[in-house]
Amino acid sequence: MKEFYIRDAAQQENKVVTTSFVISNKQIKSKKSGEPYLDLTLMDRTGTIQAKMWDNVEECAYTFEQDDILKIKGLINKYNQRWQLTIHKVRKMDEAEIDFSDYLPKTSKDIDGLWRALGEFVSSIGEPHLRLLLELFMADPEIARAYRNAPAAKTMHHAFIGGLLDHVVSLCRSCDLVARNYPFINRDLLLTGAFLHDIGKVHELSYARSFGYTTEGQLLGHMVIELELLHTKLAQVPGFPPQLKILVEHLIISHHGQYEFGSPKLPMFPEALMLHYLDDLDSKMEAMRAQFEHDAELDSPWTAYNSALARPLLNTRKFLKSLDADELEAEPVVAPIE
Amino acid sequence: MKEFYIRDAAQQENKVVTTSFVISNKQIKSKKSGEPYLDLTLMDRTGTIQAKMWDNVEECAYTFEQDDILKIKGLINKYNQRWQLTIHKVRKMDEAEIDFSDYLPKTSKDIDGLWRALGEFVSSIGEPHLRLLLELFMADPEIARAYRNAPAAKTMHHAFIGGLLDHVVSLCRSCDLVARNYPFINRDLLLTGAFLHDIGKVHELSYARSFGYTTEGQLLGHMVIELELLHTKLAQVPGFPPQLKILVEHLIISHHGQYEFGSPKLPMFPEALMLHYLDDLDSKMEAMRAQFEHDAELDSPWTAYNSALARPLLNTRKFLKSLDADELEAEPVVAPIE
Amino acid sequence: MKEFYIRDAAQQENKVVTTSFVISNKQIKSKKSGEPYLDLTLMDRTGTIQAKMWDNVEECAYTFEQDDILKIKGLINKYNQRWQLTIHKVRKMDEAEIDFSDYLPKTSKDIDGLWRALGEFVSSIGEPHLRLLLELFMADPEIARAYRNAPAAKTMHHAFIGGLLDHVVSLCRSCDLVARNYPFINRDLLLTGAFLHDIGKVHELSYARSFGYTTEGQLLGHMVIELELLHTKLAQVPGFPPQLKILVEHLIISHHGQYEFGSPKLPMFPEALMLHYLDDLDSKMEAMRAQFEHDAELDSPWTAYNSALARPLLNTRKFLKSLDADELEAEPVVAPIE
Amino acid sequence: MKEFYIRDAAQQENKVVTTSFVISNKQIKSKKSGEPYLDLTLMDRTGTIQAKMWDNVEECAYTFEQDDILKIKGLINKYNQRWQLTIHKVRKMDEAEIDFSDYLPKTSKDIDGLWRALGEFVSSIGEPHLRLLLELFMADPEIARAYRNAPAAKTMHHAFIGGLLDHVVSLCRSCDLVARNYPFINRDLLLTGAFLHDIGKVHELSYARSFGYTTEGQLLGHMVIELELLHTKLAQVPGFPPQLKILVEHLIISHHGQYEFGSPKLPMFPEALMLHYLDDLDSKMEAMRAQFEHDAELDSPWTAYNSALARPLLNTRKFLKSLDADELEAEPVVAPIE
Amino acid sequence: MKEFYIRDAAQQENKVVTTSFVISNKQIKSKKSGEPYLDLTLMDRTGTIQAKMWDNVEECAYTFEQDDILKIKGLINKYNQRWQLTIHKVRKMDEAEIDFSDYLPKTSKDIDGLWRALGEFVSSIGEPHLRLLLELFMADPEIARAYRNAPAAKTMHHAFIGGLLDHVVSLCRSCDLVARNYPFINRDLLLTGAFLHDIGKVHELSYARSFGYTTEGQLLGHMVIELELLHTKLAQVPGFPPQLKILVEHLIISHHGQYEFGSPKLPMFPEALMLHYLDDLDSKMEAMRAQFEHDAELDSPWTAYNSALARPLLNTRKFLKSLDADELEAEPVVAPIE
Amino acid sequence: MKEFYIRDAAQQENKVVTTSFVISNKQIKSKKSGEPYLDLTLMDRTGTIQAKMWDNVEECAYTFEQDDILKIKGLINKYNQRWQLTIHKVRKMDEAEIDFSDYLPKTSKDIDGLWRALGEFVSSIGEPHLRLLLELFMADPEIARAYRNAPAAKTMHHAFIGGLLDHVVSLCRSCDLVARNYPFINRDLLLTGAFLHDIGKVHELSYARSFGYTTEGQLLGHMVIELELLHTKLAQVPGFPPQLKILVEHLIISHHGQYEFGSPKLPMFPEALMLHYLDDLDSKMEAMRAQFEHDAELDSPWTAYNSALARPLLNTRKFLKSLDADELEAEPVVAPIE
Repeated sequence: MKEFYIRDAAQQENKVVTTSFVISNKQIKSKKSGEPYLDLTLMDRTGTIQAKMWDNVEECAYTFEQDDILKIKGLINKYNQRWQLTIHKVRKMDEAEIDFSDYLPKTSKDIDGLWRALGEFVSSIGEPHLRLLLELFMADPEIARAYRNAPAAKTMHHAFIGGLLDHVVSLCRSCDLVARNYPFINRDLLLTGAFLHDIGKVHELSYARSFGYTTEGQLLGHMVIELELLHTKLAQVPGFPPQLKILVEHLIISHHGQYEFGSPKLPMFPEALMLHYLDDLDSKMEAMRAQFEHDAELDSPWTAYNSALARPLLNTRKFLKSLDADELEAEPVVAPIE
Repeated sequence: MKEFYIRDAAQQENKVVTTSFVISNKQIKSKKSGEPYLDLTLMDRTGTIQAKMWDNVEECAYTFEQDDILKIKGLINKYNQRWQLTIHKVRKMDEAEIDFSDYLPKTSKDIDGLWRALGEFVSSIGEPHLRLLLELFMADPEIARAYRNAPAAKTMHHAFIGGLLDHVVSLCRSCDLVARNYPFINRDLLLTGAFLHDIGKVHELSYARSFGYTTEGQLLGHMVIELELLHTKLAQVPGFPPQLKILVEHLIISHHGQYEFGSPKLPMFPEALMLHYLDDLDSKMEAMRAQFEHDAELDSPWTAYNSALARPLLNTRKFLKSLDADELEAEPVVAPIE
Repeated sequence: MKEFYIRDAAQQENKVVTTSFVISNKQIKSKKSGEPYLDLTLMDRTGTIQAKMWDNVEECAYTFEQDDILKIKGLINKYNQRWQLTIHKVRKMDEAEIDFSDYLPKTSKDIDGLWRALGEFVSSIGEPHLRLLLELFMADPEIARAYRNAPAAKTMHHAFIGGLLDHVVSLCRSCDLVARNYPFINRDLLLTGAFLHDIGKVHELSYARSFGYTTEGQLLGHMVIELELLHTKLAQVPGFPPQLKILVEHLIISHHGQYEFGSPKLPMFPEALMLHYLDDLDSKMEAMRAQFEHDAELDSPWTAYNSALARPLLNTRKFLKSLDADELEAEPVVAPIE
Repeated sequence: MKEFYIRDAAQQENKVVTTSFVISNKQIKSKKSGEPYLDLTLMDRTGTIQAKMWDNVEECAYTFEQDDILKIKGLINKYNQRWQLTIHKVRKMDEAEIDFSDYLPKTSKDIDGLWRALGEFVSSIGEPHLRLLLELFMADPEIARAYRNAPAAKTMHHAFIGGLLDHVVSLCRSCDLVARNYPFINRDLLLTGAFLHDIGKVHELSYARSFGYTTEGQLLGHMVIELELLHTKLAQVPGFPPQLKILVEHLIISHHGQYEFGSPKLPMFPEALMLHYLDDLDSKMEAMRAQFEHDAELDSPWTAYNSALARPLLNTRKFLKSLDADELEAEPVVAPIE
Repeated sequence: MKEFYIRDAAQQENKVVTTSFVISNKQIKSKKSGEPYLDLTLMDRTGTIQAKMWDNVEECAYTFEQDDILKIKGLINKYNQRWQLTIHKVRKMDEAEIDFSDYLPKTSKDIDGLWRALGEFVSSIGEPHLRLLLELFMADPEIARAYRNAPAAKTMHHAFIGGLLDHVVSLCRSCDLVARNYPFINRDLLLTGAFLHDIGKVHELSYARSFGYTTEGQLLGHMVIELELLHTKLAQVPGFPPQLKILVEHLIISHHGQYEFGSPKLPMFPEALMLHYLDDLDSKMEAMRAQFEHDAELDSPWTAYNSALARPLLNTRKFLKSLDADELEAEPVVAPIE
Repeated sequence: MKEFYIRDAAQQENKVVTTSFVISNKQIKSKKSGEPYLDLTLMDRTGTIQAKMWDNVEECAYTFEQDDILKIKGLINKYNQRWQLTIHKVRKMDEAEIDFSDYLPKTSKDIDGLWRALGEFVSSIGEPHLRLLLELFMADPEIARAYRNAPAAKTMHHAFIGGLLDHVVSLCRSCDLVARNYPFINRDLLLTGAFLHDIGKVHELSYARSFGYTTEGQLLGHMVIELELLHTKLAQVPGFPPQLKILVEHLIISHHGQYEFGSPKLPMFPEALMLHYLDDLDSKMEAMRAQFEHDAELDSPWTAYNSALARPLLNTRKFLKSLDADELEAEPVVAPIE
């Protein structure tokens, strides 16, 4: 447990704190005098803060690199409407001291609860081979640990610890809901696709100290990685029907929906097409939500340009706030599902 | 009520029938003798059938054109695995004799039931201006009649009488379901968008005797048409908030989601983006369902090439039929909506 | 009337001036001492100038924001071949003191003369409904004021006060000329399209203190806005033929010529296609002219990369200046119009 | 002079004519008896007509091929609302008998008049090197003959004898008109570009008996061909300024305006950009005009799908015919050219 | 061994033959009398021929379908410059009678020779794990049989029995040659990629009676199929380095070179990029060669439009035949490989 | 011969050197005191180095511009892991003092050796007209000098003195090798294409002091330039067959392979298509090699993002270095060329 988190800066204004951060950007710049100073971006799981170290830089400047975790003593002050830290002392931490979960952004949801929700979806699958397949994944301690921690992307959406699980549970929920409206949809297949579609991200992305791609991730991508994970587990399911195997493989490799997004095949059956749409929708809803959260303090209902969606976004709630908000919040109709 | 419908051909094999059809294609060809014969495609709301008239063609060949409705007497016979009609006599019908609903393909669902379901969605809208706006549309007898009859497209999906209503009710249902998974979604706005997004098709498409585009439809398109319909009705809602007006207009003009599909603006707020996704998904689910229905008799689980989706489709149910189907049909889990 | 305009900097070198500017960019930076200083971009209708304020910054730095208009006292000096202003004192001005026309770039042409030229084109329209329609627009004082002031774009072309009017008059002139070469062109329709095609920019763009998009502009765009303006005015023209209405609407929504430029329909009749071509040509000719003006001082006949045209441009006149320029300037042939 | 032209078929109904045609399509089909019959498309410069030869086919069927010119005797009759010819006798003509100008579609304008108009534009060029260059082209008898005969395209626009000249004269006229509206345009350069931009089509296209591409045309295209023509003539202009040479070459190779239309460079100066726009506009205006002429007999104001423009077209005049046409025809305003 | 092959038709003109064919297209048409006749396309491994059966059709028309193999008796005759067969009698053959190799187009090269050449490339690989991996593939009798028979594509290139092997051997040869020019290329990796890049086609394509896609091929594609084949064999190579595994997987999934051609990853190291280029080049060289062979009889050096390359092709040799051909054939220089 | 080259900085650490550089970037910045200082990027043919001049700047700052060559005295020191130069004195050099070859990056290969290798390829061409044509190019002293010096591109690949020649020799070698695998390839044509395909770069690019485009290069491009060079030399080859001329011209204008890369025609015969592939391959192999060289010091086998290839690259050798490298280096098989 860190002594101080970035989100609590306001409580420490003009005080000296001693705590730890991961270095997400390090630059050595020079004062006019020719002496170097350090310009750093520090991160913990609650945010980022700019920091400068003006003195005694030479003796410590080369003792650490980006992605290292440092113990830092310094002064919290406000400058140009933002918090910053003037560093007095730094020291690189030993691995043994580090609790990595302190440094990366993390879902605000309860990971155990999400994991249980995912388990309930798996239990609800009627087709026994598919259910057993997914249970094997959940029972594999290495996969379970990774599945609960991995982000869903490097930058585009759900880029935080727990993001993969958060995204998959939300997607399962959308699948479960929309399947009710299309009676010819095989819900078991659809949920299996939702469970597996991004599972390769546990090896595609690295997320120990910062978010990046592994070599395997760069060269193969999560779809190819998850095919191999699938085959390993399939070997443990007796009598898995070969037709089902092909359908599950197709769900995986077609879920990006288009060639230019890296799917080598277009979705060719209803469950594959629906998985693609709901996955894409969930990613973009989360990208919008995160952008609104990020820009919550702005006066304008318009956000900054969102690069994942390649447009600025309008926060509908803010824009409508002059209306009586209560009027807009009505009870959901009891949906007339046939 | 017609005396005979094309879907009942098997019951009249090698019998002479007298009934009416719309001419969906007419060609005059010549026999080797130099004499003309007629090669027609006939349609009623249950299907199409090829027909040939060999004799006495000259006296009737120029008495009718494509899209006319004829009373026809002829012999039902099977040729090359398909039904055909050898025509003995034809006569163009008077407008007064015609019940146009006999000739165009039509939804198999109950239009009154769909209309009631749409009304229930409207009633469930909490924001009073939006609810009143939609109620005005439903109460307008001219619009109501058209909304209940129009197809949703010329060829791509829901290309049948009642298709527009069928599509909109299904879309409202998907919107209602998925909104439960994204608490920041304004359900009232989303349903308003679903109700209005294709309403201009009542003027864009002509569907009295065949499906086509009106001049207005060709030059303006349904999005521009529905803006004007919207403005006419808005004038009747006292105190409609100007912010809401802009949001509703944006929902309309952005619902195709991309410039190349004719949206002059990209969806810029969550309800607009969700409307686009669920609209597109509903269209494609129906296109798949219709293709499966069309190819139901084929042995292969693969359909013919589907031009709306630009790929052949796999009928998952057919493909999996060798598995014990019962195992695949499980109870929906009680979705853990937060 | 401001005391000093940026284009006159050379006459005030090393003098202290007191005048007003709009803040087009404001940054607070820090000196090595840790003290803040201000780095500003100032604008008036004749240009922009960089400014720095080194002292007493804290007391004034948060008293104003970008787009505010300030009274400033400071020293004009030249640095690194460019003029800059070292600020001594600043004060935010009251709305009452401000003549907004002082601060935004403005056409160098006579706006009254342009407005009269536009009126003459309107008077020359033979079809009485179209002429009356446009006369109603010109007689509407709110629209007239906006039409005379609005820029034609935020950055791409005619991005200055009066730019919309300047562009439309030039476009009317091109339409009038080219129509002589194509006798089947309906000149009345073409001119009506030219008059209306960008009129929605009066609401799409904001241009009080800087050029930007309104929320309406972002969500709807000028084409959709001008449809509503059109309908309002059409209601005042008795007996406006419905065919003409559809043609005018199509001229508006198709004038960008392609889906990817935000036209929901492609131009489908000759006047619509011609309007698109001549509008695009006029925009690009102005973009070239403005770039040549901007780079007039450069030795090279090549301009900087022009982002509107996505290429560098060659100033033909500069490039050919070594030839006897007189030889290149010949009398226009009496064009053999049929 | 042929004895009979296809456009005069109505005057010969049910009469036997003897005249000549070029064979634009030849198929040998078989009667049910197993005997062959001929199904031909015949063309002369006034149109095309279908023809059938039922008897004595074997002895003549292999005596001619597509693109040959035949003397034909046969009966003109009407069938299925179109004229056709029942052939009695055919004979392949000797080259000596043939006046090729009888067989290909040809501009209805006076070629000598167009040629004079082109000459006047050349004479109006002030810059002496450019004027001399173009005069050399006009004085070259081989080029002059080809320039007066070549079509401007195989199928897209101006696809008739004299089409190149027709297009260039119209383009010169548009250039001359529009240049008046942009004072910084170098009219001499612009007209030189208009004169030369398609001159390579004299070698790119073959048009003796039908329209096609030469091998040179296929492998090089008209732009590359005209560069070589240009260099040959430039060698005869003493002191041609090298800057002008580069500009003229750029006008030629950039006039398609975009890479995907075969221009290896984008237009980079105002005259090149204007030439591209006005050339494209003139082609499309002619494509529209020709489609309207082709569909003049249709009741609908909509034409068939136009493949050059990839859309159906609306004939504005037909569509507006219910209005008082006179009202639409007004005097051109005296354009207020500055 | 069939009694007669289509390529030998000229030797049987006007004779009755009895032999077998696969039905590649079957249509039932009707004579004017109303009686049906058969219009068939027959294929054997040497070509295709059109056939008609006029009499006694009803009793046999429904006894066979497309892709069936029939024993046929009929008359060879020439009609309209092409060979055709008038059928007297047909009979569907039993599986036991059929030698399938008689019916599909097949490489003209010696398959055993190609297989040995492939084996020599494998033997030349220095890295022992890669060599052992490929040896395991070659030693697997099921894969070996399929690898020797599969076509390389359905229609685009090498669409004949043995086409896969033919293509891979040629590609290995190109790889071996070009690698000599780029010393930093790892030849072992490159050859491994060449060996494996299309091996999944043994399951992607069906080629027993005609060329098509399997369901696995449609849903997964050959790249995904070959990943699984690879993993199966890798399990048998002790100590296969994990880095090498990732590189080989990347070679497989990136070899189409671009997302839109179905590669989920772009080639990211030199061997992957070179494999993509040489594979693409080999396919297109073969497509050109096959088109030249197909159009060998045409007088023109231009071929028909080639749909794989989306352009017509020029046969350079034919085009240059008027030159002294000997002059063009020179000795290869001894390439100065460094 | 310069006194000091940038690559030798390590040997002069903390010493004062006097030598010359070309200025590839010059910025005047201001110290906090308001005084200016110079921030320069210096280049010679061995690399680049950052330099700062702190004192006496005013008197020299405007005496030189970018691309000028200066004699500079200053201190070599290391800062932030990179070498920099603190300037004491600068002086602009006279043209007479300058050996331009000292300042631009240059191939590390022996230019004379490359030129001889090119000559051997020319000598090996059997077709006498083609061989004579290329010999004329090599014998032209102006072209020879330029061909030996020009870079092959401004930034993408082979962007160094001698790069054009280096690229062409390597391409000839690849052509010579691959042609052995495709017996229908006319090697003489292919080598002629390789020799000529980029020769226009001698006029397209300027490379006296830095790499840029000439006006001719910008407006015409190297393909158009080399057509004119070709025509000039063709005039000196008696009896050059016109068919060959067209083929050579097509090789030149189609070698970019696609319209969007500036080829006005797609490659239409085998030699043109092969030239395009091998040219593109050679460019990309060199781009990869240069990136590996540039990033040789990095620990990671991944390079920085490569903008020419629009992806990061994996250095295969580095990645595999943990394997026994010897095992990977095998003898090339004796390629079984047919």
